[in-house]
Amino acid sequence: MAVNLKPPRAEDLWPVSGIELGFAEAGLRKANRRDLMLMQIAPGARIAGVFTQNSFAAAPVVVCRRHLGFGQNVRALVVNAGNANCGTGARGIDAALRSCAAAARLMDCEPSAVLPFSTGVILEHLPVERIEAALPRCLESMGASRWAEAASAIMTTDTVPKAASRRITIAGEPVTVTGIAKGVGMLCPNMATMLAFIATDAAVDGAVLARMVKEVADVSFNRVSVDGDTSTNDSFVLIATARAHLPEISVSTDPSYQTLRAAVIEVAQQLAQAIARDGEGATKFMTVEVNGTRNEEEAVAIAKSIAHSPLVKTAFFASDPNLGRLLMAIGNAQVEDLDTAGVDLFLGPVKVIERGERAAGYEEAAAARVMQENEIVIRVELNRGPAGTTVWTCDFSYDYVKINAEYRT
Amino acid sequence: MAVNLKPPRAEDLWPVSGIELGFAEAGLRKANRRDLMLMQIAPGARIAGVFTQNSFAAAPVVVCRRHLGFGQNVRALVVNAGNANCGTGARGIDAALRSCAAAARLMDCEPSAVLPFSTGVILEHLPVERIEAALPRCLESMGASRWAEAASAIMTTDTVPKAASRRITIAGEPVTVTGIAKGVGMLCPNMATMLAFIATDAAVDGAVLARMVKEVADVSFNRVSVDGDTSTNDSFVLIATARAHLPEISVSTDPSYQTLRAAVIEVAQQLAQAIARDGEGATKFMTVEVNGTRNEEEAVAIAKSIAHSPLVKTAFFASDPNLGRLLMAIGNAQVEDLDTAGVDLFLGPVKVIERGERAAGYEEAAAARVMQENEIVIRVELNRGPAGTTVWTCDFSYDYVKINAEYRT
Repeated sequence: MAVNLKPPRAEDLWPVSGIELGFAEAGLRKANRRDLMLMQIAPGARIAGVFTQNSFAAAPVVVCRRHLGFGQNVRALVVNAGNANCGTGARGIDAALRSCAAAARLMDCEPSAVLPFSTGVILEHLPVERIEAALPRCLESMGASRWAEAASAIMTTDTVPKAASRRITIAGEPVTVTGIAKGVGMLCPNMATMLAFIATDAAVDGAVLARMVKEVADVSFNRVSVDGDTSTNDSFVLIATARAHLPEISVSTDPSYQTLRAAVIEVAQQLAQAIARDGEGATKFMTVEVNGTRNEEEAVAIAKSIAHSPLVKTAFFASDPNLGRLLMAIGNAQVEDLDTAGVDLFLGPVKVIERGERAAGYEEAAAARVMQENEIVIRVELNRGPAGTTVWTCDFSYDYVKINAEYRT
Repeated sequence: MAVNLKPPRAEDLWPVSGIELGFAEAGLRKANRRDLMLMQIAPGARIAGVFTQNSFAAAPVVVCRRHLGFGQNVRALVVNAGNANCGTGARGIDAALRSCAAAARLMDCEPSAVLPFSTGVILEHLPVERIEAALPRCLESMGASRWAEAASAIMTTDTVPKAASRRITIAGEPVTVTGIAKGVGMLCPNMATMLAFIATDAAVDGAVLARMVKEVADVSFNRVSVDGDTSTNDSFVLIATARAHLPEISVSTDPSYQTLRAAVIEVAQQLAQAIARDGEGATKFMTVEVNGTRNEEEAVAIAKSIAHSPLVKTAFFASDPNLGRLLMAIGNAQVEDLDTAGVDLFLGPVKVIERGERAAGYEEAAAARVMQENEIVIRVELNRGPAGTTVWTCDFSYDYVKINAEYRT
């Protein structure tokens, strides 16, 4: 029941020169479903990533950080669903390293040129021997045009695969940006086990790519109702294969940097919004805009206070314009010296709060009509500064409880 | 479906000399239910309170703070359910002041000797004329032994009235502490509209009472899964009527201070736990103990990260020992320099995590048995310091969504 989200069609996703994708049914948790994906990266690519800030970073995250630290070219990603390999101690690290070694043997590269990613249940040991057994089948099925299938293979409780693709022109040459992502529950920063992989055929210097991946995450995955950085396995990597006929982008002041960055942001935002549209049990997609704040931090605090509030989310599920809950969420953001008499609030086009109190012309019937929509914009104006932000989220339904109460059954 | 929570019996609640209680059906939101309570306080009492830290403090909270600032003896509390009088601007302040004035006329005192309290729907104007009309009926029904009925009159979505009472001896004289409280949803700091009123017949200096109310709140109402300080209307007041045959407690180093404080904490903790037991849709009552932290802040951060996590709460609702979610919540508390290899976790008597990973002897069947209970202790040991805390919370069920989706209908 994802909100206005269709599965990607293979023909809408541009291949990225230098990237091939293969899959297998490794049987890690459930039978008869693809749960293992191998992304093969041609030599010469650069890669940069951002990872969870949870203290219990999962074993694959620990290994990713270590392997990226070696500074060499990454040749493959091994991605499994069904098991997060988290809370598994030294044995978990060993399992992640074994999956890297198995891929490295197949591809004749160093194990440290392979990055592992896992998502699924926490605190259970990864049956890595099944990954080792299935990886050759991934390699046999490799193809450059299999991004849509890759998006399916990494799903857990996602109901719709998530992929996006753009083609732009830099200095007269075509450049491709294609990516896939998975989400899970969207209600709270505690639960996201989000993976996202975006590749481009542009050539980008390693340090510049590391800057870009952070800038892109800040306006996309970190702006979904989850704090993108707080689950145990959250990972977002950006790969530049350097196969386009263009010079390397070696400084962030290069105009090509801005052009490429804009395209990567478009792809990342489409994926991030897809995650909110496919939030567990979602029936509504909400965009929370906060403007007129002194700085971006204030705007993010208010937007996330709204996006995280179960009371707000259940009211939207019920299509009930119980909008005092929005006021409460704004007040809970702990914004310093907030003069509530400066706050305006709009639900779609309807002004609900004016100067901190119920707007004079507000009629609940008008808000009730907006509440019937399945895409709703909540706009807060603080009228005290030049900053702002946008956050995407979803409502909170019976099915959210059902999905999470029965997740492992 | 409150968890192991029975309605208080009138005969179990000691009257507090100097306090009388009366009620009326003011028809503020629903017909045929008591929704207005008047607490009359004899001259000479001291009163101190702690209030919400939400930026959108409701009109009655603004008026309470102002009236307490005048330093005179408070003679009455006017408490209504059904309407929070929040987001109502100058008209809301005026309505709160009018309810004080109406009570003051009846009791022949200054309007500033009356404190107003409201709880219920936000962003709707308070029909104060109904309070004015109903207050004389409150006065007619006054009685000293009506604490149990008072606990009922202030309920909103509570399913069980909440009251507690203790009798202690100080310097050979009996001293009484009796209190009532109301909660609402328990899932998240955004939603609590908690009111609590505790009275004692001891005599306590105003400044000392102000200290005591903060100390008590910190180990009771602020340790329920809600941040007790973040709704728009949260209020907890402590009244000392000075009717017991004892000298005034004028310094906090007086041994009597400790004796009285301990009794007030007992009453407050019983009320706070009752709020969690009666959390919206609750089927389980969970006690989260965190020990071995460097300081109390770390312990509170971890305990609340667990208590606020919808993923944790839905797993407990399902009696599913999906305990990786506890690990994730601990890691999300953003405790500085947390060495996860020092973390142990127990579910009841079952050791689940040892030194940061799945305990060697852990068997899911043992955890599954604990999960069947309706009172469960989650214990986290950080093994890095002398501090700790305890937080009480409840699970998260279909009925939570149902109650909050249909709250206003």
